[in-house]
Amino acid sequence: MKTSYLLNIKTLKRVVCLVALSSLMPIQVLAVSTATQHPTLVVNQQDVVTMRAAIKQPGLFKQAFTEKKQHVDHYIKQPIIVPIPVDAGGGYTHERHKKNYQHMYDAGMMYQLTQSPVYADYVRDMLLQYAVLYPTLPLHPKRKSRNEGKLFWQGLNEAVWMVYTIQAYDFIYDSLSVEQRKQIESGIILPVADFLSVQSPHTFNKVHNHGTWATAAVGMTGFVLDKPELVEVALLDLSKSGKGGFLRQLDELFSPDGYYNEGPYYQRYALLPFVTFAKAIEQNQPERKIFEYRNDILLKAITSTVELSYNGLFFPLNDAIKSKGIDTVELVRAVSIAYGLTNNNDLIDIARQQDHILLTGDGLKLAQAIDQNTPSKYAFDSRVFLDGKNGDEGALVVMRQNAPNAQAVVFKATAQGLGHGHFDKLTWQFYDDGAEIVSDYGAARFLNIEAKAGGRYLPENITWAKQTVAHNTLVVDETSHFDGEVKRGNANHPDMVFYHHDDTATLASAVIDTAYNNVTFERTMALVTLPKSQAPLVFDIVDVDSSTAHQYDLPVHYQGQLIDTNFARNASVNTLKALGEANGYQHLWLRATATPKAANDKSSSLAQITWLNDNGRFYTHSSIATSEQQYLFTQLGANDPDFNLRNENSFIQRVSGAKQHQFVSVLEPHGEYNPSAEYTLSATSKLTSLNYQRQDDISVISFQMKTASDTDSTYVLAINHQQTKIDAERNNKLTNSFAYNNKQYSFSGRYQLLEINK
Amino acid sequence: MKTSYLLNIKTLKRVVCLVALSSLMPIQVLAVSTATQHPTLVVNQQDVVTMRAAIKQPGLFKQAFTEKKQHVDHYIKQPIIVPIPVDAGGGYTHERHKKNYQHMYDAGMMYQLTQSPVYADYVRDMLLQYAVLYPTLPLHPKRKSRNEGKLFWQGLNEAVWMVYTIQAYDFIYDSLSVEQRKQIESGIILPVADFLSVQSPHTFNKVHNHGTWATAAVGMTGFVLDKPELVEVALLDLSKSGKGGFLRQLDELFSPDGYYNEGPYYQRYALLPFVTFAKAIEQNQPERKIFEYRNDILLKAITSTVELSYNGLFFPLNDAIKSKGIDTVELVRAVSIAYGLTNNNDLIDIARQQDHILLTGDGLKLAQAIDQNTPSKYAFDSRVFLDGKNGDEGALVVMRQNAPNAQAVVFKATAQGLGHGHFDKLTWQFYDDGAEIVSDYGAARFLNIEAKAGGRYLPENITWAKQTVAHNTLVVDETSHFDGEVKRGNANHPDMVFYHHDDTATLASAVIDTAYNNVTFERTMALVTLPKSQAPLVFDIVDVDSSTAHQYDLPVHYQGQLIDTNFARNASVNTLKALGEANGYQHLWLRATATPKAANDKSSSLAQITWLNDNGRFYTHSSIATSEQQYLFTQLGANDPDFNLRNENSFIQRVSGAKQHQFVSVLEPHGEYNPSAEYTLSATSKLTSLNYQRQDDISVISFQMKTASDTDSTYVLAINHQQTKIDAERNNKLTNSFAYNNKQYSFSGRYQLLEINK
Repeated sequence: MKTSYLLNIKTLKRVVCLVALSSLMPIQVLAVSTATQHPTLVVNQQDVVTMRAAIKQPGLFKQAFTEKKQHVDHYIKQPIIVPIPVDAGGGYTHERHKKNYQHMYDAGMMYQLTQSPVYADYVRDMLLQYAVLYPTLPLHPKRKSRNEGKLFWQGLNEAVWMVYTIQAYDFIYDSLSVEQRKQIESGIILPVADFLSVQSPHTFNKVHNHGTWATAAVGMTGFVLDKPELVEVALLDLSKSGKGGFLRQLDELFSPDGYYNEGPYYQRYALLPFVTFAKAIEQNQPERKIFEYRNDILLKAITSTVELSYNGLFFPLNDAIKSKGIDTVELVRAVSIAYGLTNNNDLIDIARQQDHILLTGDGLKLAQAIDQNTPSKYAFDSRVFLDGKNGDEGALVVMRQNAPNAQAVVFKATAQGLGHGHFDKLTWQFYDDGAEIVSDYGAARFLNIEAKAGGRYLPENITWAKQTVAHNTLVVDETSHFDGEVKRGNANHPDMVFYHHDDTATLASAVIDTAYNNVTFERTMALVTLPKSQAPLVFDIVDVDSSTAHQYDLPVHYQGQLIDTNFARNASVNTLKALGEANGYQHLWLRATATPKAANDKSSSLAQITWLNDNGRFYTHSSIATSEQQYLFTQLGANDPDFNLRNENSFIQRVSGAKQHQFVSVLEPHGEYNPSAEYTLSATSKLTSLNYQRQDDISVISFQMKTASDTDSTYVLAINHQQTKIDAERNNKLTNSFAYNNKQYSFSGRYQLLEINK
Repeated sequence: MKTSYLLNIKTLKRVVCLVALSSLMPIQVLAVSTATQHPTLVVNQQDVVTMRAAIKQPGLFKQAFTEKKQHVDHYIKQPIIVPIPVDAGGGYTHERHKKNYQHMYDAGMMYQLTQSPVYADYVRDMLLQYAVLYPTLPLHPKRKSRNEGKLFWQGLNEAVWMVYTIQAYDFIYDSLSVEQRKQIESGIILPVADFLSVQSPHTFNKVHNHGTWATAAVGMTGFVLDKPELVEVALLDLSKSGKGGFLRQLDELFSPDGYYNEGPYYQRYALLPFVTFAKAIEQNQPERKIFEYRNDILLKAITSTVELSYNGLFFPLNDAIKSKGIDTVELVRAVSIAYGLTNNNDLIDIARQQDHILLTGDGLKLAQAIDQNTPSKYAFDSRVFLDGKNGDEGALVVMRQNAPNAQAVVFKATAQGLGHGHFDKLTWQFYDDGAEIVSDYGAARFLNIEAKAGGRYLPENITWAKQTVAHNTLVVDETSHFDGEVKRGNANHPDMVFYHHDDTATLASAVIDTAYNNVTFERTMALVTLPKSQAPLVFDIVDVDSSTAHQYDLPVHYQGQLIDTNFARNASVNTLKALGEANGYQHLWLRATATPKAANDKSSSLAQITWLNDNGRFYTHSSIATSEQQYLFTQLGANDPDFNLRNENSFIQRVSGAKQHQFVSVLEPHGEYNPSAEYTLSATSKLTSLNYQRQDDISVISFQMKTASDTDSTYVLAINHQQTKIDAERNNKLTNSFAYNNKQYSFSGRYQLLEINK
């Protein structure tokens, strides 16, 4: 039956104790029965027994039950409406059918919990109406090509409808007469399953999240109706070849680290049919050990979704609306299932933040853990998430300081991420103290607001949000990566050079030579804690190489108010002009320009820009300004007649007519602005110098920081850039030597941070 | 001794029960003693007895004590430093002397609570150092004219130092030998008192908050040293004439409603010496009934400060930094003293929000009330705060819906507010769901950030923040009220026309004819709940009249993203230009223009502008667009080379070459945008028409709203504008009649809201 999960992944350390669990399980669950016992999908009979007891005890679960019951009691008194489908997404019949599956699911669950027939009758009556309507339906009048539905304009919605509805049917199955079952199964359940599978082979066999919804719907139908054939095709594709189907989807849609290449915004959506069907498989075919499949790929997918977040919100990678976070209902379900399997206490912390108790057996376990104040703290830590089904198409790197709301760097060296991908190779984001500091625009979209392009992606999603200049990465000659062509983007990806993590520092480097013809650029980032410093520093080296001369732009999109620069700026005060003509540049107003080295003619080439975030902290970006390096200060909002864009601020480091160039910079969080308590601390940077040298494989970054006693400490950060397979990094026996100030230093391993005493 | 407080003000209904209180008081407090018992200022001996008991019991008070003790224990181990004063504000010696008084106060209190001599010794040793230093000091080298100090560059700081230090001295008085007292009193206490009074007659006698700090310092010194002479001059001025001094300050610095004409940002600061000295007077001369003085003016000043806030933050009136709120330490002290006097449970709610327990007798009472979960809810309600010492210089009107974070309208028809006043006669602000919706810029200042004009008010505070166009009120010919002259502003004020409040609506109207030569404008605002509507509507009528033609601008500074307008806009897409040359207009970029009526040539003249606030709600501003009425869409940030301004958005209704004009508009909160849960509700306005007529004294506003069943309801709001004294409004027996659609209607009272059935 259930076996222990030997989880390799770091955050799921606790192992389910087989003996302890088994001893709690009633015999009917442990025994393999030939006739299906209902319910048999996400919730089983034993779950129902414990839930019925729990709703009699005070606690979170009872609260959630009471609230849900009020809601269900309200709507089951309303007339049942099963309209003939006519509207597209957002229209009346579309929304009605969406509501109906939700209502059937909740009423079915309420029947299991209360055993009151009114709830079962409601589901029955609605299903009977569907059973009458469905056989009469042609394809939906507003259907889209290739993925068509009958109840809905898209087959995707039809599959989602079925995933919920089959669970509702499972809940009330035992309350129905044989005749009623026959009517419902022959009128609606089997026809929908047939429509989603045999009649929609393109979607059903497709290795894509739309396919996952379809296979989940059909496979779960197979379990409830005791039709193993449906389960088989769901798992292996219509011809049972294994070229498509749920198992192949598990093989290919996630990287070995559980990263989904469209990013977390779409990952949490894709996750739901995976975990729901898998839970049903675990229930009915435990011998498959589905959650252990491909080294626990589903549990990795769940935890990676959780970990691709900061302060409860997902990192906005690719097309992503920023307010989406870990409390999304899909992740609530996924986390509850993961907890049910692993009893991993860390997940209680996530469930607490999600603040949403599910009326399932796993939901009950979480509710009880929260009620009992079980100590838990999700161990967010630095991680590399390899991209690509084989883990060889770049990676997403998350560097974290280990404290709540402490610093996080997101370094995106992933593959393109299909149609929702952005042209943002080797971009980064920075978070601190709960807030975005160096940010990504996310998607340009006002979801479901009719006045804003019908609530769909705005035109500016293409003209701005996807363009390279909208990200914190290299733009060559004012054009986007892959010339903004998705196909070229999908065909290429960056390569990881290395990833290293220890208690003092997290470092990573990646390289790409396909984003631009004849241009290679490597980016190396490091989040480093200095011995005497409160906040860590972020180091950033962008090393560009081409055999021909280009203009290189490196934007930093910062959140906050510009406080100061250590160089003179030349501002446009009475007139603003758009910075460029195309590829996103047409949306940037040019507010000021500066050439720090040339203008100031200082021996020091340190260019510093300080801003103040709404979180009350200061951030200084220090960079080495070569004499040709220009700084442009921009504000978003040009060519935006519909006021579709947020008016955010950026600065761009620009070098023109260069073949090689290194952009070297340090980001430093510092101080506090507290106008309420009327104090301001450390409003200026402590960094006083910054130098960079490349010595063969070794980067040598030296810098000085002001100490508390107002003297300067000198540090050298030496990094070895030799390429290493990510999973071999730990065994890395690099030996290195470099020169600094005419003195030779040597070290072993990926990097060394030295404090130099004069 | 203590007598009952017969409080008229609404929020302080509970009356202290004399008998009950007396029976709890030990005899030594009730008896008038000739020799002073220490401590004798804000904290008395009985307080000390109860506090000593409380720190032995678990609870908030003990927590606060433990934290404070840790802090004090840390710094009393450091060497005492009493430097020769050399630095101006923010400099080392300035900050050191500020820290010293805070340290002495806390250590003195710690002595009272623990009776451990180490704390008393620390205060003693520091005072002895001051006693040696002070007599040697000349005037401060960085002194400012007219208000000079010795320890500090400003006499104001010297007075604040003394207010704290005399309390510290009072705390340790009993631990000192007669000789030590003599040294301290002759070396520092009396010389400072003398410096603040006899040697600084201009400040000491001034009816101004600087004078209050000085009189409080000197008067409290009189109590501690048992020198009634000092108390007398503090109360009545140096010549005991009563032309200055604390009592005269109480007479003049607040309006009869407790409004302080600089606004709440400065009011909370001014409040501290008032309540501290008053508490000491109450302690030592209870027969003065100081808290009953001028109809409880001090309690009114405390509650009005609390009530001039939304969601915990003060309304940004005049020069105000927006993050300042009710948790400011000055208001923490004031609220505790008010609670100590009145036992008004409403204040517990405020104390809970302040989240700061004071180590005083009153602080203990509040801590215990919070520990015991005493039910309390501060009754924020609509209020009019008359301005001017006689209550006849306009008013600040706050209109509120009665629910947490519900709508609030601030209608500012106050006097200028001296040097920190803005040229913003009859401006308004709107709040909803915890957020600013129609906003005021507040002060242009980054407090204490050196890079931003030394942390002082920015140049843009004058060129933008104080100018009329920076507010939501009428600008004539692109010039500011009173031509931006403070003196003219102080010499004039608006007049209230009426104020009315009942369960359905709050209405107010005010008029001014001195802001511009030969131009009179009356503004009438109403916050009205419709029978079938969820959110209330805000009505706004600005009625301008001149005998000569002018350009009239009426800006709305909105917080959020523009979603839609129901008319075409002509946007600047490649170039932005500043809207004007001066008076704030030079800081506005012109993003778009529109002439809705002319452009669309519609029969309907309804111009609608919808934006989305970060709080997730939509707001539609609907106005009657006459054919000449132009709409300008602007963004702040032109002529701002130092990036000093926030880039906020506004639209301006503009009429050119007109003598009379009525701007009539309605603001409507609606719907919800929830991209996290993926739904959007009611993104469009329900208002479908708006008409206005003035019939003699009666405004007749008719409008239609879409109902749930998608039909229109027609409403008429009729308002009588007849001027009435504010406090006579309740007895108002207005009778009115008006015509609508050729039908005659009549009503009595200030207004009527009718739903018209066709």
